[in-house]
Amino acid sequence: MGKGRVEAFTDGVVAIIITIMVLELKVPHGEDFSTLAPLWPVFLSYVLSFIYVGIYWNNLHNMFHTVQRVDGRVLWANLNLLFWLSLMPVTTAFMGENHFAPVPVAVYGAELALCAAAYIILAVMLHRLHSNDTAFARALGSDRKGRISLALYIAAIPLTFISQWIGVAIYVLVAMIWFVPDRRFERVIEK
Amino acid sequence: MGKGRVEAFTDGVVAIIITIMVLELKVPHGEDFSTLAPLWPVFLSYVLSFIYVGIYWNNLHNMFHTVQRVDGRVLWANLNLLFWLSLMPVTTAFMGENHFAPVPVAVYGAELALCAAAYIILAVMLHRLHSNDTAFARALGSDRKGRISLALYIAAIPLTFISQWIGVAIYVLVAMIWFVPDRRFERVIEK
Amino acid sequence: MGKGRVEAFTDGVVAIIITIMVLELKVPHGEDFSTLAPLWPVFLSYVLSFIYVGIYWNNLHNMFHTVQRVDGRVLWANLNLLFWLSLMPVTTAFMGENHFAPVPVAVYGAELALCAAAYIILAVMLHRLHSNDTAFARALGSDRKGRISLALYIAAIPLTFISQWIGVAIYVLVAMIWFVPDRRFERVIEK
Amino acid sequence: MGKGRVEAFTDGVVAIIITIMVLELKVPHGEDFSTLAPLWPVFLSYVLSFIYVGIYWNNLHNMFHTVQRVDGRVLWANLNLLFWLSLMPVTTAFMGENHFAPVPVAVYGAELALCAAAYIILAVMLHRLHSNDTAFARALGSDRKGRISLALYIAAIPLTFISQWIGVAIYVLVAMIWFVPDRRFERVIEK
Repeated sequence: MGKGRVEAFTDGVVAIIITIMVLELKVPHGEDFSTLAPLWPVFLSYVLSFIYVGIYWNNLHNMFHTVQRVDGRVLWANLNLLFWLSLMPVTTAFMGENHFAPVPVAVYGAELALCAAAYIILAVMLHRLHSNDTAFARALGSDRKGRISLALYIAAIPLTFISQWIGVAIYVLVAMIWFVPDRRFERVIEK
Repeated sequence: MGKGRVEAFTDGVVAIIITIMVLELKVPHGEDFSTLAPLWPVFLSYVLSFIYVGIYWNNLHNMFHTVQRVDGRVLWANLNLLFWLSLMPVTTAFMGENHFAPVPVAVYGAELALCAAAYIILAVMLHRLHSNDTAFARALGSDRKGRISLALYIAAIPLTFISQWIGVAIYVLVAMIWFVPDRRFERVIEK
Repeated sequence: MGKGRVEAFTDGVVAIIITIMVLELKVPHGEDFSTLAPLWPVFLSYVLSFIYVGIYWNNLHNMFHTVQRVDGRVLWANLNLLFWLSLMPVTTAFMGENHFAPVPVAVYGAELALCAAAYIILAVMLHRLHSNDTAFARALGSDRKGRISLALYIAAIPLTFISQWIGVAIYVLVAMIWFVPDRRFERVIEK
Repeated sequence: MGKGRVEAFTDGVVAIIITIMVLELKVPHGEDFSTLAPLWPVFLSYVLSFIYVGIYWNNLHNMFHTVQRVDGRVLWANLNLLFWLSLMPVTTAFMGENHFAPVPVAVYGAELALCAAAYIILAVMLHRLHSNDTAFARALGSDRKGRISLALYIAAIPLTFISQWIGVAIYVLVAMIWFVPDRRFERVIEK
């Protein structure tokens, strides 16, 4: 089964997710600067999610670039990841509209953890189709970065109830780690 | 007439449908876990529809892969299918927001039946263009799976008024049958 | 300048327009069949517009298929057409939510007239780039069909104020004329 | 790293932005012409933004056409531009719904300035990857047009508080300057 179909569909869905997120940024009613003030938390959570979806687009694209073949399991593992990513607009707005209150921040962390777990499952499903000496397997390695991120998101959820800012700090930190495109795949692509 | 144009447009529309469905998942107002409780039925109907649209994407893609040519009738049969699929976000939200009440569950069944019928019509229109010894015709066969699904959806509609959970059970069952990508076309593609 | 870029962008925008139109079909509140009754006019206007956008997709695709080159004027003539098409979701909902009242039906006719005029302008701009013996010019011919449609839409606007059903009948009639894909371009593509 | 991935994703996101903007054009409630009157400012700001997004699509497409390679920095500079462009639907509606009041007009100017700055940053990041004798560098030149536009947007912000129509006039003026596709890149593409 060709990978082109999965790549194009994934790119399409991610492009739509990153763009419709803005529809949750409600147009402020009123004509002076004070009407913009309550928008700040919504805006900041939008910025964070835009960066996260950008990271997923980049990493998914790099990963599929080194992939040689896909099968039905990969396809559903990919749809599973797209499902959790598709919830990003809702969890982002939930966190922003409630001014980073503990429960919404924890829910956002659960969302990030579920996306990260879905990404790991996708990588495992792809690994089953590629022997250890393929470009894909070498690039993926032990996927330490993916597993550490998942552990950090899970850790952030209870810490949010001590202070939500610990949770937010962890999400920003992990985003910064991933901000640099996943060099593992890029190094292999360059060869 | 080339099939590429129909394939790309279909993939685009399906990618948009699967993604904008999330816009019906309204952001909860409130900062504690209790505000999330009423979202469960909406979320579960979203999961079911996401899987259904994923199944359609997969089967449409496999079907067009083995197709050799299309004509104006195929094009409108395909737009007819996309039309019924495009109603998925509305019927999904109708079922979820009313906590799986009988009428919305029956309406959702009618929606699934109309999509299934449109898929069968599309297959018939394509069959007219392909003789019985083409890859497409061999892969499609008698399309028993498609016809049984349609019969089950139609049966589910009156059964919903005995108990809506019979209807929901049928929709989940048929989704599970189709969850595995349509091997008929895959087997032919692999050759 | 290559035509591929204009084709892909146009297909993308049309796919989005045809799909987001459903977002104007508001989810009914209530659990019995009576809640669906007021949706009928909205649904019927949605069906009509879905067919119209389908027709535009089909004709645009056929037209660009025979085109050999585009320039900056074609590009803006095309964006002008996409602009008027992008208003389709709003005018459709305006007509449907007001149960085909005369003013909304007239506004919908104006929208169709503006789309038709934009299509004619696009064809003229493309004609300037193609001599009369090109496949494009032969296929376009005198574009009688496009001009008659425009005349019918314009005629429908005042007739709507005698009875809105005259307007609606004209829109349905013209859609039926165009329902068959524009054979002019298909005939040329087949050669 | 291939540029194709960035080009396709950018085209997709821009196509979605230009189309979902219409969702902020709320369907008027009422059946006579007077219900359309308050829509004029919203409609006019929609027209302006549609032209601006069209200009960005055109210029981005021309720019990437002459580009030979991209790297991680270009990718994030491009996502940065897409981020600011994605706010266009919100700032457009904010300006339109408040009938071009000074603060919303100034906010719209800030939005245009941020998009222009992001475009300049993207051009600089691309310039770092292309020596001065490449087609890209010759086409970009000193990018005077981009820098003058940015200066005009920034100048418009304070002038808005003297009269908002000065701000609006500047936005219309700059749009007219860019309306003609960026001939610098076209001239190079033609060769």
